[in-house]
Amino acid sequence: MTTSAAAPADLTELYADRIRQLSGQARRAGADVVLISPGPDLAYFLGHSVSSHERLTCLVVPADGAAALLVPTLERPGWAGTPAEQLGLTIATWTDGEDPYRALAGLLPADARVLAVDYHMPAVHALNTRAAVPGSELTLAGEAIGQIRMRKSAAEIEALAAAGAAIDRTHARVGEFLRAGRSENEVAQDIAADIVAQGHARPDFVIVGSGPNGASPHHMASDRVIEPGDAVVVDIGGPMPSGYFSDCTRTYLVAGDGPADPDFPAVYEIVRRAQAAGVAAVRPGVPAQEIDRASRQVIVDAGYGEFFITRTGHGIGLEVHEHPYMVEGNETTLEAGMAFSVEPGIYLPGRFGVRIEDIVVVGDDGPLLMNNAPTALVTVG
Amino acid sequence: MTTSAAAPADLTELYADRIRQLSGQARRAGADVVLISPGPDLAYFLGHSVSSHERLTCLVVPADGAAALLVPTLERPGWAGTPAEQLGLTIATWTDGEDPYRALAGLLPADARVLAVDYHMPAVHALNTRAAVPGSELTLAGEAIGQIRMRKSAAEIEALAAAGAAIDRTHARVGEFLRAGRSENEVAQDIAADIVAQGHARPDFVIVGSGPNGASPHHMASDRVIEPGDAVVVDIGGPMPSGYFSDCTRTYLVAGDGPADPDFPAVYEIVRRAQAAGVAAVRPGVPAQEIDRASRQVIVDAGYGEFFITRTGHGIGLEVHEHPYMVEGNETTLEAGMAFSVEPGIYLPGRFGVRIEDIVVVGDDGPLLMNNAPTALVTVG
Repeated sequence: MTTSAAAPADLTELYADRIRQLSGQARRAGADVVLISPGPDLAYFLGHSVSSHERLTCLVVPADGAAALLVPTLERPGWAGTPAEQLGLTIATWTDGEDPYRALAGLLPADARVLAVDYHMPAVHALNTRAAVPGSELTLAGEAIGQIRMRKSAAEIEALAAAGAAIDRTHARVGEFLRAGRSENEVAQDIAADIVAQGHARPDFVIVGSGPNGASPHHMASDRVIEPGDAVVVDIGGPMPSGYFSDCTRTYLVAGDGPADPDFPAVYEIVRRAQAAGVAAVRPGVPAQEIDRASRQVIVDAGYGEFFITRTGHGIGLEVHEHPYMVEGNETTLEAGMAFSVEPGIYLPGRFGVRIEDIVVVGDDGPLLMNNAPTALVTVG
Repeated sequence: MTTSAAAPADLTELYADRIRQLSGQARRAGADVVLISPGPDLAYFLGHSVSSHERLTCLVVPADGAAALLVPTLERPGWAGTPAEQLGLTIATWTDGEDPYRALAGLLPADARVLAVDYHMPAVHALNTRAAVPGSELTLAGEAIGQIRMRKSAAEIEALAAAGAAIDRTHARVGEFLRAGRSENEVAQDIAADIVAQGHARPDFVIVGSGPNGASPHHMASDRVIEPGDAVVVDIGGPMPSGYFSDCTRTYLVAGDGPADPDFPAVYEIVRRAQAAGVAAVRPGVPAQEIDRASRQVIVDAGYGEFFITRTGHGIGLEVHEHPYMVEGNETTLEAGMAFSVEPGIYLPGRFGVRIEDIVVVGDDGPLLMNNAPTALVTVG
């Protein structure tokens, strides 16, 4: 229930800087204070998070003034030695039977009225906090936080590269697990074990979508037995001990008398070209939606536009989905250090699906690939 | 990322009845509509939930009128064959690039103004929904939902009993894992594996608090090497495939030249009597806070009141912590079918901790124990 990043003293300045940036973003967004509950945002700003169930834990970052942390008394020992202590934050506690929202209100600037809460804060905490601060209103801090989190540091890019290399090693072994006669669940179980063996803290998702199941982008795995000639979408990833995620998809062909569906090879090549076009479009100064357009155009031109039913990608870091999103309408200008997936697909209901996905970081001159597994079709089994 | 309860046709009426009850609770609470996002509440009302990351999935239950479900287009196939379809709900979809909150607003009753959201709904969904419904305001549906969820059916009590029996089997094996010379982490790893071996879907928490670490109620496990004579708090549990949780604590003594701390045996007996007193107080008609008082009085009378730093218990079901809470100030009247932990403790900083916890269901005449491991002191190693 506790995730903790390594926190040597030289990281303290890193977290202090992130919190200063958040104060600045809060001012620009017109918020008096930002409130962050346990989860990836707390891990990002304090290098430490917890899962405190229904008990309120909250980081308080005023637009002006010093940050503070409220924790349940019984969890206070778990914060010993973490960056929260090294940063010199006020760490206040509340005890079972006391009103945690009153305690939180006491940590806010006296005139705080616009309370910006993190995306993930459970409604129970957000609404009860508003009720404890007369005249206050709630806004979302997600955009302000995203402005900071989506610009990855060199250390974060290194962590994403390590995650990418780890999941590449698992993809390199898929041929050992995936063959006709086994169920998707059996294959998924072996892949999940290998994800951990290759250095992940845990598997977060293991999609094995064989034959018609591959046509549902978020199908996980089932007891369907894989057949010769099946196309199989394998979309896998999880967090490393650093907290940073991997996420990589390849679509495999199971050996047989050729593909069960005669259109599969052509569709595969269309998706492969679409994915390459999306990656090739990545460079500083380009709006995020252009990555989506670059991939989508290839698929539309090939006549399969109506079967590309998702956006092209999502940001990645301490969450597997975060800012920026590669989707029509997102005009966010890409900058060096932003990290996201490029994962176009074609999904043919009742027949099969093809998706190819790599994680890409925006480099100074173009894309930096965090995954390096080949995208040429691999036949297994 | 998908949890799914078995959903034979004869369960459809169960979920239909729960949704009807929720409509009634919404009316009584003055809400126009209840909105439920993925998580335990959705699993309770639909027998199926998903983790859809940042994409909005939401069950809509009006105070008057038919319920509906909004899901992302790409996750629609995952709902095939679930109770949501069998219930005849309107299942609406939204596609990447569309505004999900506008889509949700279109599913609400035309005059909906008071929107009650589940406790867990992420702030991003709650606040964006409010913004999409002009003139609306947010309230919490948690109390209304708790009124339904905290009254367990016979089938739910059976599921809790199965969970309790499974975790009892793991406690019966702790002597094989816990001995001097091993680290808390090593012991925790063995216990986690056994939790799965005994029938759980996964371990959710494995607390092994040896010596001074036991004095921090939410310490998990560390690299501390267990010593002869240590007191060790072992608090373990997780969800069964049914979704229902186990949660049971025993405090063990590691063999040596007697306890390392001479006060341990006396403190253990105080906690044991306090736990028995809490359990003995359980019966219909008693306010929840009386369970806390019954346990606490024993510890206060023994002179250790200031070292009992938590409430006495929490409800349990599809969540490991849910309504009702056994805490001073909670005047909820206990009714037959309510399920919760009774887990007093004494925590002596720098020395050791003792906690004993069982799950109890309120029976017609008194307590029904879901755990049946003995509470007499067990020496291991």
